Amino acid sequence: MTTTTTKPTAHAAPSDRTRIRRIAENAHYDRATLHAILDAAYVCHVAFVDEKGTHCIPTACWREGEHLYIHGSNGGRLIKLLAKGTQACVTVTHIDGLVLARSAFNHSMNYRSAMVYGQFEKVEEKAAALDTFMRHLAPGRELEARPGNSKELAATTVMRISLDEAACKVRSGGPKDDAEDMGVAAWAGVLPLVQQRGVPVADPQCTVPAPAFVQRWAA
Amino acid sequence: MTTTTTKPTAHAAPSDRTRIRRIAENAHYDRATLHAILDAAYVCHVAFVDEKGTHCIPTACWREGEHLYIHGSNGGRLIKLLAKGTQACVTVTHIDGLVLARSAFNHSMNYRSAMVYGQFEKVEEKAAALDTFMRHLAPGRELEARPGNSKELAATTVMRISLDEAACKVRSGGPKDDAEDMGVAAWAGVLPLVQQRGVPVADPQCTVPAPAFVQRWAA
Repeated sequence: MTTTTTKPTAHAAPSDRTRIRRIAENAHYDRATLHAILDAAYVCHVAFVDEKGTHCIPTACWREGEHLYIHGSNGGRLIKLLAKGTQACVTVTHIDGLVLARSAFNHSMNYRSAMVYGQFEKVEEKAAALDTFMRHLAPGRELEARPGNSKELAATTVMRISLDEAACKVRSGGPKDDAEDMGVAAWAGVLPLVQQRGVPVADPQCTVPAPAFVQRWAA
Repeated sequence: MTTTTTKPTAHAAPSDRTRIRRIAENAHYDRATLHAILDAAYVCHVAFVDEKGTHCIPTACWREGEHLYIHGSNGGRLIKLLAKGTQACVTVTHIDGLVLARSAFNHSMNYRSAMVYGQFEKVEEKAAALDTFMRHLAPGRELEARPGNSKELAATTVMRISLDEAACKVRSGGPKDDAEDMGVAAWAGVLPLVQQRGVPVADPQCTVPAPAFVQRWAA
């Protein structure tokens, strides 16, 4: 028989601080879940500390392999601090619905979240990394837009954090009521929330026909 | 003539660490913007530090007056730490679209974000606060669901953080290209992203007809 300490890697936390304690059955430590949550995100929240306190800053992100990437202006607070090797925690959260139970206490939300702990490192191959970012936003876009010139690239820092120390938490499905509440006359179920794509809005001065990825955006 | 130091309060940062430096014209310090961003959120990210490092935890939130509220199990790491008066930073972010400019460098996102700095305090009137939470999720819900009993309420901690030290950053509208890029043959515009409501999914054992707020959810 297996015990907690001999569980497969995919089901074991990579470190003490990534071990999910509250509702541990919602924890996931496998790569596929982590990658899917990160790949569905346009933005992460980065927490770090400086002499003014603890900060939580939203910033665009993309994944490549076993790293999560961000970028920013060299002069920005986030980039300057992270470049010093400050310990960070990066979180991505998708909300999938409100879960209405028959009792107030058992109300919940459906969500997919990922947390990554570690230190960011500077990426030297900035142009290639930013091309990957463009592809994440809109496949093929990196071939259309005017690429960054040397001045723009010099003003930009690309950083990445390893996905080695990460954990996911996912809740899905309907409400879980206590047996004695099943007779309560309250509607029970899920009110879904979905990130939808809206109809593209062309710039008034745009004379270029919408490429395939724009035409498909809200299809 | 006014100077930076005599601007109206609504346009001045409440503290040094909430003064937005990057693209400062997107900064908002007025109550209406802050309240609207928080009220549109179901979840915030809370950053704080403990002996294991810096953490960034997503959790449900709601606003009442000039406070943002969260709740959790007494035993949870988040609640235990915050109850000690740990300094926190709470961030809410809504992504409204991808902004495609003619140059890679000028790509951006439309978003609404709010950051709140401070310390959480315990809320004694837990039942009333949780009723407000229920109304935030679904107006009228607090009258249908079985209210929390004394055991459930005793196991739950409600905390709030003052909105005194807060800042918002909002970007909207189309791309802002450099004049020399206007001839680049790349589609330019906004690919909108919207948090949509999906069709409610009743619990298979639910025999209660959908109330008005459920019927209207995805209307």
